[in-house]
Amino acid sequence: MKTPILLNASEAEVIRALRKTRNVSRTDIAEITGWSKAKTSQAVNSLVEKGYLVDVEEGASQGGRKPRILRFNRDMGYIMGVDLGATSIDIALADIDGNVLQRICEPADVRNKPEDVLGRCCTLINELVQLQGCQVAEVLGIGVGVSGPVDFHRGVLVAPPLMPHWENFDIRSFFQQTLPNAYVIVDNDVNVMALGEQRYGDAIGLDHFLFVKIGTGIGSGIISNGKIHRGANGCAGDIGHICVDKQGPICHCGNRGCLEAMAAGPAIVQNALEAVKHGESPFMRHIMEINDDILTPEQVSAACREGDEAALRIIRNSGQMIGDVLAGLVNFFNPSQIFIGGGISNFGNHLLVSIRRAVLHRSLPLATTHLQINFSKTGSDAGIRGVIALALEYLFVDEDKPYLTV
Amino acid sequence: MKTPILLNASEAEVIRALRKTRNVSRTDIAEITGWSKAKTSQAVNSLVEKGYLVDVEEGASQGGRKPRILRFNRDMGYIMGVDLGATSIDIALADIDGNVLQRICEPADVRNKPEDVLGRCCTLINELVQLQGCQVAEVLGIGVGVSGPVDFHRGVLVAPPLMPHWENFDIRSFFQQTLPNAYVIVDNDVNVMALGEQRYGDAIGLDHFLFVKIGTGIGSGIISNGKIHRGANGCAGDIGHICVDKQGPICHCGNRGCLEAMAAGPAIVQNALEAVKHGESPFMRHIMEINDDILTPEQVSAACREGDEAALRIIRNSGQMIGDVLAGLVNFFNPSQIFIGGGISNFGNHLLVSIRRAVLHRSLPLATTHLQINFSKTGSDAGIRGVIALALEYLFVDEDKPYLTV
Repeated sequence: MKTPILLNASEAEVIRALRKTRNVSRTDIAEITGWSKAKTSQAVNSLVEKGYLVDVEEGASQGGRKPRILRFNRDMGYIMGVDLGATSIDIALADIDGNVLQRICEPADVRNKPEDVLGRCCTLINELVQLQGCQVAEVLGIGVGVSGPVDFHRGVLVAPPLMPHWENFDIRSFFQQTLPNAYVIVDNDVNVMALGEQRYGDAIGLDHFLFVKIGTGIGSGIISNGKIHRGANGCAGDIGHICVDKQGPICHCGNRGCLEAMAAGPAIVQNALEAVKHGESPFMRHIMEINDDILTPEQVSAACREGDEAALRIIRNSGQMIGDVLAGLVNFFNPSQIFIGGGISNFGNHLLVSIRRAVLHRSLPLATTHLQINFSKTGSDAGIRGVIALALEYLFVDEDKPYLTV
Repeated sequence: MKTPILLNASEAEVIRALRKTRNVSRTDIAEITGWSKAKTSQAVNSLVEKGYLVDVEEGASQGGRKPRILRFNRDMGYIMGVDLGATSIDIALADIDGNVLQRICEPADVRNKPEDVLGRCCTLINELVQLQGCQVAEVLGIGVGVSGPVDFHRGVLVAPPLMPHWENFDIRSFFQQTLPNAYVIVDNDVNVMALGEQRYGDAIGLDHFLFVKIGTGIGSGIISNGKIHRGANGCAGDIGHICVDKQGPICHCGNRGCLEAMAAGPAIVQNALEAVKHGESPFMRHIMEINDDILTPEQVSAACREGDEAALRIIRNSGQMIGDVLAGLVNFFNPSQIFIGGGISNFGNHLLVSIRRAVLHRSLPLATTHLQINFSKTGSDAGIRGVIALALEYLFVDEDKPYLTV
């Protein structure tokens, strides 16, 4: 199996500085690391000589010579990202700075066998490489996000409720066949979204935050002390099965009243169908009549935007339940921000306001004074940006800490 | 203000290896770090020359020369630990390996002014130094644990509910006057207990675990990726105000049905008094009669041990509520272990069994398969061992990362 590029401690520190703050000069790096000019030069020169970095004249001149800015060497090769949603494949080819060059999204069903789904991914990878006019051998790293608990070191899914066929399937080896020179790294999809937000979104520089994905299910990615917190078994962040109501409906996990069973997309639709049945929403009844009796979460959201009271009540209720659970987690974890993403995050302000209100009502003042709760602006790109960030993160690793966690 | 001892990156790595695994040889360090023999020797020799480490002939011989074991140099000086509980001061003088040499515990009321409480601490510090026959100038570091949210970098309490007079009081400067050569470091009491468990208890080598303190209040210390997670405002772990019952009694925080208000020591007593009032516990009524109508949590526990059904029901209820909250946190955080400490941890198996049952019932299988929930064996020593560990942890810091978090 391909391994990452090993660096010594000082070189690794330079790469970390470069990842955190774009457009850095040697002087900036000396400042960030606290090193002498000589030590900084030695580490930077070594990375330039190895062909990993280039320095270019790009900074704004402050009188005198223009400062030289350090960049990753784009001639090194490419990065691939694969974000496997429950119902979609999102694949992108990126340059070594993480800029997306080619991208394909298509529907998929991850409940199928891994050989089939990943086989399709490899076909798409070849298409992307062809579109870009490069070679598979030039792809240096690939990050893969999957919906389920991941044993991060082995790169396999463990007891994934959504994808039973994938249990222990060797995803890394599978991709290695198509991308012989790429280091393959696999992680949970919400962890990856948190990483995308941290590297390219509004969480740059944040040490403690949560990314909450609300869609068919509800999950969260956790950043603690600047790093992804995966937990002892890789399943940290699984907030969808926290109990909201001990007398609530039975969840597919077997327990009663799980947050996911009461507040996620399918529950919103279920509650809306009940409202229609009880004649509480002529608007949604009409939508159903012109759509073969089908109602989607997006249509409930549209009804809410049109002022339908039943839809508004249902969405507010969902927000309140999600907020009640997050309130407890805010007390426990004390994040500086919570980013909301996933399909339901298009539901607009009614959902967000209910979430915020519940959190502010129940959490302690010190934990909420500076707390911000917002929709992720990275939105539907958080996943794909995240898998690219993941691949870049592990492209270079410190030779002294080969298992360095992001 | 005194600063910690600065080390270069390699020296700092050796110190970390030494803290993690006692009794290490140079060969062990080379193995742990993955360094060459030469690089290891250079870093170790530098630390020996500076007088921070000594190597002694102590390892078991495997034929041939006895391996030489590295140790901290005990002649360097001493470490002080101050654990301020709500109602007690616990102070200890330790050697550079963290072994307690002298210790004094006495009752105190932290609601008093900080000058008074800390003034008393300084008197006790001088007594300990005298008992040991050393000088205050020989104390190199002091760790202080306080009951409340701590701004870790500034070393002050922020909005402490229990100790309003302490808000923003400069604890570090106060101790600096008595201990001129000591680096002073202040942290929340439960964070410190978690650190004590990690350094000297059953959590050695654990990367993700919780320490839950149950007494007058309920709080938790969180270790993520091997480090204390303090959160954005230093108040992470405050689980006492997570909602258990929206219709529950009003808590001193102003909200209804907080875990602390329903399951901690005072609530147990309150419920027991109700039971006595309703004639449900002749045993506890008798205890009250011979104790001036006073009932303590310990007496409820004693009643439970004697088979009193009301006391048993009350304690089981508390365990169930604590377990329900922990179940959610297990899903979210995925710890490998939960250690229970604090006054109530002497309550025995009925409490522990109820907590375990509630967690197993509500958490997801992957998160609970290997999860262990036990009373902390470090028990009442977790706090004092923790503050000593904290002081030791920050005695040496990496010059490149002066704000390295534990």
